[in-house]
Amino acid sequence: MNTGFARTPEPPYVAVIFTSRLAPDNSGYVEMAAEMDALAREQPGYLGIDSVRSADGLGITVSYWRDEESVRAWKEIARHRTAQAAGRTRWYGHYEVRVARVERAYSGP
Amino acid sequence: MNTGFARTPEPPYVAVIFTSRLAPDNSGYVEMAAEMDALAREQPGYLGIDSVRSADGLGITVSYWRDEESVRAWKEIARHRTAQAAGRTRWYGHYEVRVARVERAYSGP
Repeated sequence: MNTGFARTPEPPYVAVIFTSRLAPDNSGYVEMAAEMDALAREQPGYLGIDSVRSADGLGITVSYWRDEESVRAWKEIARHRTAQAAGRTRWYGHYEVRVARVERAYSGP
Repeated sequence: MNTGFARTPEPPYVAVIFTSRLAPDNSGYVEMAAEMDALAREQPGYLGIDSVRSADGLGITVSYWRDEESVRAWKEIARHRTAQAAGRTRWYGHYEVRVARVERAYSGP
């Protein structure tokens, strides 16, 4: 899983902001998330990922991609894999996905 | 602080993705963060905020704004306030800020 900060190139690039709350029964989620994380890193156009989940189950994962094409390709793969893995399980109580074009970036302190 | 999911309008709008790790000595951080959160909500163009911090100190906060103008205005205010509050304290070991234009969004399940 993620251990630090994504090292992204100079903008522009694409951010996929995934905000989620886990369902009360989320057995198998951790294993699925680790597998999806490893799979994402192999995809064309993958730039990095930042992921945080609090103790109360709210999480934000931001993955960074070279362009819209790589985002769309990853979405298809991710949908297929999670559908296979989930069966009838719902890991998420709710989620929001936002696809955004990063226009500038800076760091500190 | 944030209790759920930001309720944003139809895109386009602007997301400010703030990824941070707290410094070992971060006394006063929680109070400052709560104050900044309340202040953000009063600003013109504010649309919402999602914020998560894990037990190990890595955090992602995404704030949503109507347009670039409201982002820039908020940045000036935030910089001024945190500078006043911080004195010589450094709350963050490291942070990254990315300003991105949200182009599409969807939710589930």
